[in-house]
Order: sequence, then structure tokens, then C-alpha cells
Amino acid sequence: MKDLVRTYVGLLAGPVVLLVAYFTVPVGWFGPHHPRISWTAFGVLLAVLGAGVLREVRMQVLGQSRHPVPRILVLLCGALVVFSTAYLAMSKEPGELDGLVTKVDALYFTVITMATVGYGDIHPAGQAARIVVMIQLLYTVVFLTTGVTALTRQVKTRAVQRARHREQRDDRR
Amino acid sequence: MKDLVRTYVGLLAGPVVLLVAYFTVPVGWFGPHHPRISWTAFGVLLAVLGAGVLREVRMQVLGQSRHPVPRILVLLCGALVVFSTAYLAMSKEPGELDGLVTKVDALYFTVITMATVGYGDIHPAGQAARIVVMIQLLYTVVFLTTGVTALTRQVKTRAVQRARHREQRDDRR
Amino acid sequence: MKDLVRTYVGLLAGPVVLLVAYFTVPVGWFGPHHPRISWTAFGVLLAVLGAGVLREVRMQVLGQSRHPVPRILVLLCGALVVFSTAYLAMSKEPGELDGLVTKVDALYFTVITMATVGYGDIHPAGQAARIVVMIQLLYTVVFLTTGVTALTRQVKTRAVQRARHREQRDDRR
Amino acid sequence: MKDLVRTYVGLLAGPVVLLVAYFTVPVGWFGPHHPRISWTAFGVLLAVLGAGVLREVRMQVLGQSRHPVPRILVLLCGALVVFSTAYLAMSKEPGELDGLVTKVDALYFTVITMATVGYGDIHPAGQAARIVVMIQLLYTVVFLTTGVTALTRQVKTRAVQRARHREQRDDRR
Repeated sequence: MKDLVRTYVGLLAGPVVLLVAYFTVPVGWFGPHHPRISWTAFGVLLAVLGAGVLREVRMQVLGQSRHPVPRILVLLCGALVVFSTAYLAMSKEPGELDGLVTKVDALYFTVITMATVGYGDIHPAGQAARIVVMIQLLYTVVFLTTGVTALTRQVKTRAVQRARHREQRDDRR
Repeated sequence: MKDLVRTYVGLLAGPVVLLVAYFTVPVGWFGPHHPRISWTAFGVLLAVLGAGVLREVRMQVLGQSRHPVPRILVLLCGALVVFSTAYLAMSKEPGELDGLVTKVDALYFTVITMATVGYGDIHPAGQAARIVVMIQLLYTVVFLTTGVTALTRQVKTRAVQRARHREQRDDRR
Repeated sequence: MKDLVRTYVGLLAGPVVLLVAYFTVPVGWFGPHHPRISWTAFGVLLAVLGAGVLREVRMQVLGQSRHPVPRILVLLCGALVVFSTAYLAMSKEPGELDGLVTKVDALYFTVITMATVGYGDIHPAGQAARIVVMIQLLYTVVFLTTGVTALTRQVKTRAVQRARHREQRDDRR
Repeated sequence: MKDLVRTYVGLLAGPVVLLVAYFTVPVGWFGPHHPRISWTAFGVLLAVLGAGVLREVRMQVLGQSRHPVPRILVLLCGALVVFSTAYLAMSKEPGELDGLVTKVDALYFTVITMATVGYGDIHPAGQAARIVVMIQLLYTVVFLTTGVTALTRQVKTRAVQRARHREQRDDRR
């Protein structure tokens, strides 16, 4: 029971902290009034996220990745927060992302795009917004592939561990 | 033949009961006229569904899950019914989910969102509706992952059982 | 080389015949002018397709399915043709599927829905059309699961056959 | 470290060259003013891409495919560029692809369709555009299947190689 609680706390602590930060930290300063610093911050954050995912991919290929699921979850939520903030900042420019007003709207648009639902009620209309959406989809594909591989590997590893446990137990009898 | 019928009855009984209940039980009482009880009921039902899925996930990781497919199918149809009812209740508030009128519409919107088709003919416009859609997508991803893992495991287990059967038969000869 | 041609002919013969039949056979008779016979024909064809898929699923679970890919391809194209014809027939009723006029439109709408793209340029507006779209998505999920399982199984079987071939060759040396 | 750089250069060189070529080579000559040559060029390029993918599929089934991921990435980016150019050429005909003006728009529409997001802000309205979108989705499915199979195979092969390495090392001790 204690292990179970620890597992869930380890899984959910990162995402919860990131979401709380997203909704509380004011980001109104970013946007078309300070374009250079805003784009630089966006680029740096994307590079950090990308480096994190590539490190995860490399560790998986080398078989050195233990407990990758919480790390991938944090990276995924980080991407959600970074792209939501970017869309929020872009929406201040008229004709880029009409219909996107609140922080909930920005997160909703990011999730709807990541899940490939795409209702179309909010959609990128400007050139910059369309390029950012394409980058988000590229990140989504890489995250998805890494996440699925990590998950299947973890499930398999545990199954093998359990099988060995049973065999050892049977041998002792 | 008898086994086959029993398998299909076991698979489809739950979903059919849930869908019949959805279309016959009146739920007009829920909605913006009784917001507190409606949201509480929605939260409790989501918690029950979530607990069911997490229990299934845990049983799979521990290798104790036998015949998980019918249970996951019931959980999935339960989620369909709960979210459809929630959208139906929210649609009474103007500006939340315009275009959603009948129970068929609500189920259609839930299915279109779960399958990530997202035509956009019905789409969430209010803040509350957008948050509920995000929750539905989170549930969909968890259900999908659990369901696919369960299915592949069941298919593999049966394949191994068949292989052992054959070997034993061959040894006897 | 001869084997390769035979494989592709075996794979593509069924789909090509079905698509040619779809575009040449006149189906204008079906629709709201003959509702009873149209719906009956639709139901019978869905039952035939469903029985075909379930038979395929059962053969896979029992490990008796050899070369399932061409059969699943024919079933999939059959579903495409049946649903396209159904949408074409329904579009004659105003307010069911506005924007769907030609046979290409109907096939386009079916493909866009099956691939879960869902632009929303054509979308079901009537109750009947929405139910048919939900049925199509249910069929899509079952087809997809069966198809992916069949494909992975076939690839694995061939890999095992190749491995055995090599071992036997090595033993002879 | 040197190996890592070489791997990433090998992976990204092709896609980067193709994207730079897409944005720099003028393609304004293609379109409704030269329909015959435009369609012929499109057909030839599709045939080349299709032949490349089928060759990859065949090599995978025969187990002869080594390092398929960079080749599939180039084929995928090639498809992106070919379809984007086709949509750009078609958009000059009014009523085919309204809302698609720049090269970024064309690439955005191709990516949004390939990722099955489908906002619907740009959508095919003419018969020819709808047929091309259907062809793109067919290519997407084949690419996706091939890519996923290649990736899982490569990950598995490396895992087996690592396991053998370890066993040999353990035997020597």
C-alpha cells in the first residue's frame, strides 16, 4: 500500500507542480510587445525539452533507462506548458490564433492538437502560429514514440522479473 | 459453439446494459439548475471509473489480470455514458456546447472526441466544457493504453497455451 | 520476381475490383425514397462484414489464420464501399449530410472519418447520419485492431521461418 | 560522442536538404496552367516514393533491412514535399483548396492531414483535391506501418546484440 502511494506520488508530483505553475505564474509580459526575448525564451525551452527527450531515447537504446515513465510524463507536461504559453503570447497578435483568450483556452488548444482531435474552433491562422503548431506535432510524435517504447519496455521488464522470482521460488521447494 | 456464444455474451452484456440505461433513464434533472449535486455526481463517477482503470492497470503490472477485456469494455462504455450525460447537462447552459440537443448528439460528440475525429460541428465553447473535454481525452489515453496492453497480453497468453498443448500432445505420441 | 507479382496481385485484386464496382454500379435507387429496403440492405451488408471480421479474429486467436492480410484488406475496402454508399443515399435527405454530392465526396468523407482526420467540411447533422458515423468508427476500431494484430503476426511468423531455415542450413554444414 | 554526432547527421541530413529545397526551389510553374506536365510529374514522384516504400517493406519482410530509419525519414519528408507542392499547385484553381496561399500554408496543411489533426481551416473542396488527400492518407498509413515496424525491429535487434555482448563477457570471466 505504501509502495503504491509512493509510485503515484512519484508519477503525479511533477505534472501537478507544472500545471499549478502554469496557472499561477503570470506570463503576460511575453508576447508581441517583446518579440525578441519571447522567441529566445521559447527556443531555449524547446531545446531543453528536446535535449531531455533525446537523452531519454539514447538511454532506452543503450538499455540504461530505469523508471523512465515519470521522467517522460514530466517532459510531456513541460511541453504542454511551454506550447500553451507560446500560443497565449501569440494570440495577442490579431489574426494569429483567434478565439484563444484565457489560459484554459491555451491549454485546451494544446491538448486538442496533441491528441490530434482538431475541432477547428481555435486554429492557427498566421504564418508564425502555423509553424509553431508544426513544431508541436513533431514533438508530439517523438514524445509518443518514446513514451510507448518506455512503457512497453517497463511492463516487459517487470514481467521478466516476476517470472524469475517464481522460478527461484519453485526451485527452492 | 456454446463457448463462442458465452464469450460474446460475456463481452457484450455490459456494454448493451449501459447503453440501454443511457437511452432510457431520464437525466434531465442534472444540469445548471442543480450545479452542486451535478458536479459532485460527475466527480464521484469519474473517481469510480478512474479507480476501476487503475486497479486494472495494477493487476496487469502484477500479472494477476485474467480475462481483462470484458472489464475494460464495461469501463470504456461507462466512461462514454458518464461523459455523454455530462455534456448533455452542460449543453443546457447557453454558450457551453452549442449544437448538442439530443442524447444521440451527446453520445455522438463523446465518440467523435474519443476517436479523435473532431469534425468541429459540435465543440466546447465555454471554459467548463473545455476542461471536461480535456479530462475526457486524459481518460481516453489511459483507457487506450490499458486496453491495448490487455489485448496483446491476452492474445500472447493464448498463443503460449496453444503451443504448450501441442508440445504435450507431441510428447505423448 | 514472379512470386512478388503474384503477392501484389493477390493483395490488390480485391480492393481494385471493389473500387471499380463502387464507381460503376449505379446506386441511385437506394435512399429516402425506398427507406425500408435501403436500411435492410445496409444492415445485411454490415452483418456480412462483421461476420467476416469476427471470423478473422477467431481464426487469429485460434492460430489458424494463414495469409490474413489480403482478406482483411478486402473486408476493409468492403466497409469503405458500404459506408460510402450509405452516406451517398442519406445525403439525398436534406439536413443529414450537407456538402456530400458525388461518389468521390462520399468516399472522401468515409476515408476522412476512418483516418480520424475529420476536417468538418462534410459532417453528419441528422440523427440517423450521426448513428451511422458512430457505427463506422466502431467498425474502424475493430478492423484496425484485427489488421495490426494480423500484420505483426505475419511478420513474426516469417521471421521465425527464416530463422529455422538458417539453422537447418547451418546444421547441414 | 563522435558516433552520436554521426548518427544525428545521418538522420537529419536528408530531411533538412529536402526542406531547404522545398522553400528555395521555385515551383510556381506547376499548376492549372500546365495541367498535363504537372499531373505527370506528380504521378512519377508518387511512383518513385511508392517504389521506395515497397522496397523497404520487402527488405523488412526478408530481414535484409539494416538501418532503415534514416531511409524511411527521407521517404517521409519526400512525401511531405511532394504533396505540399501538389496542394500549392492545386490551390491556384479557385474552389480546390481555399485558404492555402504560401509554401508554409501548403506544408502546414500536409502536416495537419498526415498527423490526422484536421482543423478544417484549410480543406479540400474540389474533386481533384479530395482524391489527392485520399492518396496522401493511403501513403501515410503505409509509411506509418513501415516506420513503426522498422523502429521496433531496430530497437529489438540492438537489445539482442547488447544481451549477446553481456553473455560473451560473462562467459570469459
